[in-house]
Amino acid sequence: MIGPGVDTIRWAADGRAIEILDQTLLPREARHIRLEDAAAVIEAVRALRVRGAPAIGVAVAMGLALELARHTGEPRAAFLRRVEETYALLLGARPTAVNARWALDRLRGVATAVAADGADNGVIACKLYGEATSILEEDRAMCLRIGEHGAPLLPDDGLAVLTHCNAGALATAGIGTALAPLYVAHAAGRAVPVIACETRPLLQGSRITVWELARAGIDATLITDSTAAAAMAAGRVGAVLVGADRIAANGDVANKVGTYALAVLARYHDIPFYVAAPASTFDAAAASGAAIPIEARDGGEVRGGFGRATAPPDVAVFAPAFDVTPAALVTAMITDRGVLRPPFAPGIAAFTGADGVASAGGDPALNT
Amino acid sequence: MIGPGVDTIRWAADGRAIEILDQTLLPREARHIRLEDAAAVIEAVRALRVRGAPAIGVAVAMGLALELARHTGEPRAAFLRRVEETYALLLGARPTAVNARWALDRLRGVATAVAADGADNGVIACKLYGEATSILEEDRAMCLRIGEHGAPLLPDDGLAVLTHCNAGALATAGIGTALAPLYVAHAAGRAVPVIACETRPLLQGSRITVWELARAGIDATLITDSTAAAAMAAGRVGAVLVGADRIAANGDVANKVGTYALAVLARYHDIPFYVAAPASTFDAAAASGAAIPIEARDGGEVRGGFGRATAPPDVAVFAPAFDVTPAALVTAMITDRGVLRPPFAPGIAAFTGADGVASAGGDPALNT
Repeated sequence: MIGPGVDTIRWAADGRAIEILDQTLLPREARHIRLEDAAAVIEAVRALRVRGAPAIGVAVAMGLALELARHTGEPRAAFLRRVEETYALLLGARPTAVNARWALDRLRGVATAVAADGADNGVIACKLYGEATSILEEDRAMCLRIGEHGAPLLPDDGLAVLTHCNAGALATAGIGTALAPLYVAHAAGRAVPVIACETRPLLQGSRITVWELARAGIDATLITDSTAAAAMAAGRVGAVLVGADRIAANGDVANKVGTYALAVLARYHDIPFYVAAPASTFDAAAASGAAIPIEARDGGEVRGGFGRATAPPDVAVFAPAFDVTPAALVTAMITDRGVLRPPFAPGIAAFTGADGVASAGGDPALNT
Repeated sequence: MIGPGVDTIRWAADGRAIEILDQTLLPREARHIRLEDAAAVIEAVRALRVRGAPAIGVAVAMGLALELARHTGEPRAAFLRRVEETYALLLGARPTAVNARWALDRLRGVATAVAADGADNGVIACKLYGEATSILEEDRAMCLRIGEHGAPLLPDDGLAVLTHCNAGALATAGIGTALAPLYVAHAAGRAVPVIACETRPLLQGSRITVWELARAGIDATLITDSTAAAAMAAGRVGAVLVGADRIAANGDVANKVGTYALAVLARYHDIPFYVAAPASTFDAAAASGAAIPIEARDGGEVRGGFGRATAPPDVAVFAPAFDVTPAALVTAMITDRGVLRPPFAPGIAAFTGADGVASAGGDPALNT
């Protein structure tokens, strides 16, 4: 087995539900819950029971398919209306998750085509169920390919890979993006320790990343975000490896806030800085990082967020969700289609241009 | 008035107690509590009701004086024994706080000299009360001088000063060290906004720094530690200004973990990086930062610490309390004796050498 062996999202064996690992219970409890209709999927996405751009895309696709599978006996018009209504509801669950729109569009396109071809409700539902399953499997395969492409880049001298946030199995249907190379290396018997930044304010590093690494048997050490420089100065870090939310045409990388600092620190300490992401993360429409919109988070996450106020309630907060790492600080990009080295623009153009990968993979969305 | 106008520590008007602002209640409540004997001072120091190296030194000195002021009617031998016993108890309250040892040694030296000179218990107690008051006033004066020396270095173009942890009024008996220049500038009518890093794991930035800045009427914005780079990239930061726990003979600076990252980021963004500290912070015995011992904090502070577990309970944690910023990254050092510019070694040697400032000021201790 490669990875932590946890199904972030899967079909229930009885076919009548989606099962997700409820991430709000981590790290205290690892429990799958059943989602039996689209409404349950929406609640799970909203409550961050399932998170990470790839995983959200898979979840809403499966949610649409499940909803229709349970209503094949409806009159034709009502059934087709349910496709549209459920599409809209699922899309609204997390409006910023662009992967969700891509996945839902893909399913709706199938429904429209098959319905126009005269298929009955049952056939339409089955086609959607199959298409959602394909999205799930493609996500798993994408992760594995990133892992295989990235594993050779990892240090073999006992130094650690430092990572930020969670771009792991729990953000995808597979073994993750940034953590995938680590899982592949571990499965090959290599010992590559990991240092995980806790990732304030929402602590995806401490709540999720170290949990899934430990489950896979990988040596993980937790640090506060501001300890990364001390770890580098102590000679403990052999590489930095992070995910990406969106990558501009020139190679500028938008990712969870704090990533840019790690890139500057890695350069100062002469440590390679790698970004792992599916090729669908490349956004040809953004010429540079300046064109990538940066979502502002609610300041309340910084003023408190652990069940108690830790700052004056009225203090101003600057809380961008993401920052932009200039391409010049990136050593290499590890994608499901191979490793890109500087200059990145030609490779990104190839991935997003004539061969149409961008439209096949959809836009990237927000990790949370 | 210069500063937030909060007495971190003071004598009670009735002379029979020390009053401290109980920092464990911040930011929810600003309340002074009475400490009526040495045991109460010890409890307050242990529980972090009073914190910061300068403030702790002041507190234990006042605690020793107060204890003896209340027992002048004791037989001579018991009274002198009480000096020694109380000295030892107060010293044990926070063993790492080297300032406390310096302050207590100073009081014990006075007691010994006066007692040998034949003074009665009442005179001894009064001398100690006076000596503790001098330490309090000297700390206030030290802060003000740092403020006056540092204020001219602050940006006047609307850009913010970024700071880390709390080296403010609440860490001293006066207006702080790193925050002192900001208070002096504010009192002079200058508008210098501040960006405060929250400072995980104990959140001194969000709990204390933004509270005291707001109280002084200074525009403060709170960020997570990993947002500092984004703030710099956004062009919001005109200078970084931090305190120091110990400064080696070559100018290497030990301070709260995360400081070093800020120094690297400041250099990368061409932003001046200032360290503010009393001259007593210079440690001539440490040739470089490598000679400064770095205390490891309890990993539990990172695994949780907000009243709930936020990481697996058994995950390894790398949690140095401090990091070392190499002298080469420091633009200037702001001390109570003036501003030092590179190369720092000659100035530090002057401060710690023939003129004996180091012995007068004591070793620096730990900010918490």
